Amino acid sequence: MSQTRWLSEAEQRVWRDYLEATQLLWERLGRELDESDHGLALTEYEVLVRLSEASDWALRMSELAEHLVHSRSRLTHSISRMEARGLVRRQACPDDRRGVLAVMTDAGYAALEAAAPLHVRGVREHLFDPLEPAEVAALGRALAKVAHHLREG
Amino acid sequence: MSQTRWLSEAEQRVWRDYLEATQLLWERLGRELDESDHGLALTEYEVLVRLSEASDWALRMSELAEHLVHSRSRLTHSISRMEARGLVRRQACPDDRRGVLAVMTDAGYAALEAAAPLHVRGVREHLFDPLEPAEVAALGRALAKVAHHLREG
Repeated sequence: MSQTRWLSEAEQRVWRDYLEATQLLWERLGRELDESDHGLALTEYEVLVRLSEASDWALRMSELAEHLVHSRSRLTHSISRMEARGLVRRQACPDDRRGVLAVMTDAGYAALEAAAPLHVRGVREHLFDPLEPAEVAALGRALAKVAHHLREG
Repeated sequence: MSQTRWLSEAEQRVWRDYLEATQLLWERLGRELDESDHGLALTEYEVLVRLSEASDWALRMSELAEHLVHSRSRLTHSISRMEARGLVRRQACPDDRRGVLAVMTDAGYAALEAAAPLHVRGVREHLFDPLEPAEVAALGRALAKVAHHLREG
């Protein structure tokens, strides 16, 4: 700890911009979804996206937690709320007695489908429209590298 | 809604990379802080950073909520936990009877100072080290534009 390499001013600025862009973007996308007729939280939308891509629309709770920003306790809370609204159901893993699966219902899929146009419009409007194509490509390359490094590390 | 401009494949990839890099980065930084002796959650660290930059180390709860990803209810929960540990205290706004201020204590500042080297090392290791300087600059430019657009919009 004695040799902390503090961030340069330029790095601090990039880190602040990352935090701020992400916080504002999450907040805006979340508010747009929440205020719509769909009434999904952004985290609930993300859960449904993940489940829609899984085979049989089912994932272990532990797998689902890996892909999401929120802590495990918050995920459990989200899934309980979603279960109460009929968007997902929980069931025991057939091949692992201690595991619990989250499974998307038809109603969950319908909610995802209904909310998708609004969400995609928000992503386009708030993330892609302000950027030139070359900037989008550069952003993608940098973030892909960061993600790759974190997956490997 | 009838004219949804769906994302192109390239845009979908960029959006996925953004989500994945951010989720992995938040998770890693959060785990490193949480597992350290400091025992701060990433959100608690962010709260302390914001307060340390405010005059008199004090911000209205509503101002604090604006700058953070989490919802207002989660912020209230975080502040309660931090208050119980002596890192912040709440007090009435002197000039607004209904407002509540969160104020960082000396113990809160000490916790921030103690955790900062670990946090900065994580940001450097997981975000900046995998990237070339030109990639860092491009990432910063793109995210600054996105943040600017969201602040104005």
